[in-house]
Amino acid sequence: MTAPPQPCGLITLLSDFGVRDEYVACLKGVILGLNPRARLVDLSHEVPPQDIATGAFILAAAAPYFPAGTIHLAVVDPGVGTGRRALAARTRGQFFVGPDNGLFHLIFAGQAELDLVSLENPTFFLPQVSATFHGRDLFAPVAAHLSLGADLAQLGPAFRDPVRLPWPEPAVSAALLRGEIIHVDRFGNLVTNVAAGVFRAWFRGREVELRVGPLTLTLLRRTYGEAAAGEMLALIGSHGYLEIACAGDSAAARLQAEPGLPLEIRQGE
Amino acid sequence: MTAPPQPCGLITLLSDFGVRDEYVACLKGVILGLNPRARLVDLSHEVPPQDIATGAFILAAAAPYFPAGTIHLAVVDPGVGTGRRALAARTRGQFFVGPDNGLFHLIFAGQAELDLVSLENPTFFLPQVSATFHGRDLFAPVAAHLSLGADLAQLGPAFRDPVRLPWPEPAVSAALLRGEIIHVDRFGNLVTNVAAGVFRAWFRGREVELRVGPLTLTLLRRTYGEAAAGEMLALIGSHGYLEIACAGDSAAARLQAEPGLPLEIRQGE
Amino acid sequence: MTAPPQPCGLITLLSDFGVRDEYVACLKGVILGLNPRARLVDLSHEVPPQDIATGAFILAAAAPYFPAGTIHLAVVDPGVGTGRRALAARTRGQFFVGPDNGLFHLIFAGQAELDLVSLENPTFFLPQVSATFHGRDLFAPVAAHLSLGADLAQLGPAFRDPVRLPWPEPAVSAALLRGEIIHVDRFGNLVTNVAAGVFRAWFRGREVELRVGPLTLTLLRRTYGEAAAGEMLALIGSHGYLEIACAGDSAAARLQAEPGLPLEIRQGE
Repeated sequence: MTAPPQPCGLITLLSDFGVRDEYVACLKGVILGLNPRARLVDLSHEVPPQDIATGAFILAAAAPYFPAGTIHLAVVDPGVGTGRRALAARTRGQFFVGPDNGLFHLIFAGQAELDLVSLENPTFFLPQVSATFHGRDLFAPVAAHLSLGADLAQLGPAFRDPVRLPWPEPAVSAALLRGEIIHVDRFGNLVTNVAAGVFRAWFRGREVELRVGPLTLTLLRRTYGEAAAGEMLALIGSHGYLEIACAGDSAAARLQAEPGLPLEIRQGE
Repeated sequence: MTAPPQPCGLITLLSDFGVRDEYVACLKGVILGLNPRARLVDLSHEVPPQDIATGAFILAAAAPYFPAGTIHLAVVDPGVGTGRRALAARTRGQFFVGPDNGLFHLIFAGQAELDLVSLENPTFFLPQVSATFHGRDLFAPVAAHLSLGADLAQLGPAFRDPVRLPWPEPAVSAALLRGEIIHVDRFGNLVTNVAAGVFRAWFRGREVELRVGPLTLTLLRRTYGEAAAGEMLALIGSHGYLEIACAGDSAAARLQAEPGLPLEIRQGE
Repeated sequence: MTAPPQPCGLITLLSDFGVRDEYVACLKGVILGLNPRARLVDLSHEVPPQDIATGAFILAAAAPYFPAGTIHLAVVDPGVGTGRRALAARTRGQFFVGPDNGLFHLIFAGQAELDLVSLENPTFFLPQVSATFHGRDLFAPVAAHLSLGADLAQLGPAFRDPVRLPWPEPAVSAALLRGEIIHVDRFGNLVTNVAAGVFRAWFRGREVELRVGPLTLTLLRRTYGEAAAGEMLALIGSHGYLEIACAGDSAAARLQAEPGLPLEIRQGE
């Protein structure tokens, strides 16, 4: 067993707050008031309002690129002020703070070393905790105290059953791979739930036929620029999943595609 | 009388510049060129163009969550290059820099300790001041110099009559409380001008009937999650004002509401 | 010849990634993992997807306001994963890292002191370089290593022929100045390709008539606030170019104008 990570002073912020209102700034002010030396990085604040699954996807895609000891503060929290648990976690060499509603599902899934506590010690909250804004009043101060060296065990009792997210897994048989679109990015690229490893193990260089909506593809590309302008293509994207794209255009707009759209890959003739 | 605050090295930025153009980055480059150790936090740059009242609301909502000695640089400046005064202020244990056009009205209102100077000393400006971008050429360097320890008195002459903003106050009688919507946030929550303290002093747990547009409510909730999905609700929001919301949806869209819409709360039967 | 600039620890980021996805955060995580002391500033991530010319304009407008030794990391990269060159450069006392596709054209144009290298040394990349996301896997680590003191010559071989951008120059004769709109900002101001110096040398205080789309103007203003609300005006904008604006409104919306729209200024009667 390895020594637990030490906080490195870096705190990332993910939310559905947007950047028009002052909500994100309030979190930062609270953190910097407690730890003036904390360094803050925004993951995204444009998670669609209350869309826990998109928040979970973005967090899981970004976290591996941050150094050991990073604290990830994530707040997509439709249940704020109700009985939902608030958590802090240590896993993958990093720390995670936010509501226990599935937002950390992809981070926690399959981790043997996972320390979880329920945030119940008000010593680490703001003096007044509103019923509507735990990001500012509870999660931000907890993240700041963690960055100052507070121990997980001080924050509240341990628990072992974090809320899971219903997450579609691809269905794999010898001749057929069935998945679905799970994420659409800013460029209109369609990220599927077919991980690169799953796809490659199934593919083994065979001739295949990929169908998604009205589209049929038979080629796998390495990168966007290999296709002619306007051409639809399939490739392993930078998230590490099979992705459907359109060279120089939005595949989502072309296919009128959104998360949930099914995808089938068959062994070719 | 307490000792004046010392700058803590933190500078926040608020503007209507948006984040597509390089305007905000220019301010940051200017500040970091003068004080490489300044730490910068964005409040918001999505204030609607030239909307001083929204800028004033966001600044007043965020500032209290920042530590003593924070310098708030705020630029919503339709009168740039005309005769409008440029100001720096010290109050509430923090510093404020920007145009004197009402943007700081909510910060200054009711403050006994308020030091104001008119920015007239070009020593603290960029060598060339354009007629159209005082954020970059005048306010950013002044904020940087303040963070380095420049004294208010060096920046220009003191004055006592900052521009005020017309700001609607709620009308309160024994049986009726009249207010209006003053802000719509990213979630479509409708923030009213009825401060929590004003509401609670009037309410005293009575049965009440709240009317706003086509909506009538008789219950006050603690938090969004207490209502069923799609239900409209009234609650004291995280800004510290009475707020109209819709659980899991946008109250603004449901009610076609925008700032200025009146609100009435009557004593119930 | 002056001594080459030393990195000052400041790294700016420009891209067309948007801020909804985690792409920008991944770059920052990679940089801060390699150099925890780097200070990061966003120039803009709202460059329209794959719009190299807009990226070039924003970069050239912002860079002069940053201190010597700043590293500008810019990624608008439709050719990622194809044969397009990746570059690092030292010029104007600053450093530049990104794809060699014209994005740095306005920075490099006319610079006598310009050191350019082709990024070919994988020691300075992430261990695995994807075919689709060189911002994260190649450009961000190179920028981080530069900020730690890596020498340009270590990164790859020098070259001298960076890709140029077709960039419209104004046509100037004694009685007529012809230019075009090259940029529309968030306020709807129309920035032309007529630099302040070019205009002033031609203008010399004469009576002139400016035509753009359906609009004719005969006055040059100093600032927006000099015109009545809703009035169209021409002025030298903060970018240092002749600009068409509308007091308190969007000139782009009023004129249905976008980049490429021609502009003519004639000597008046």
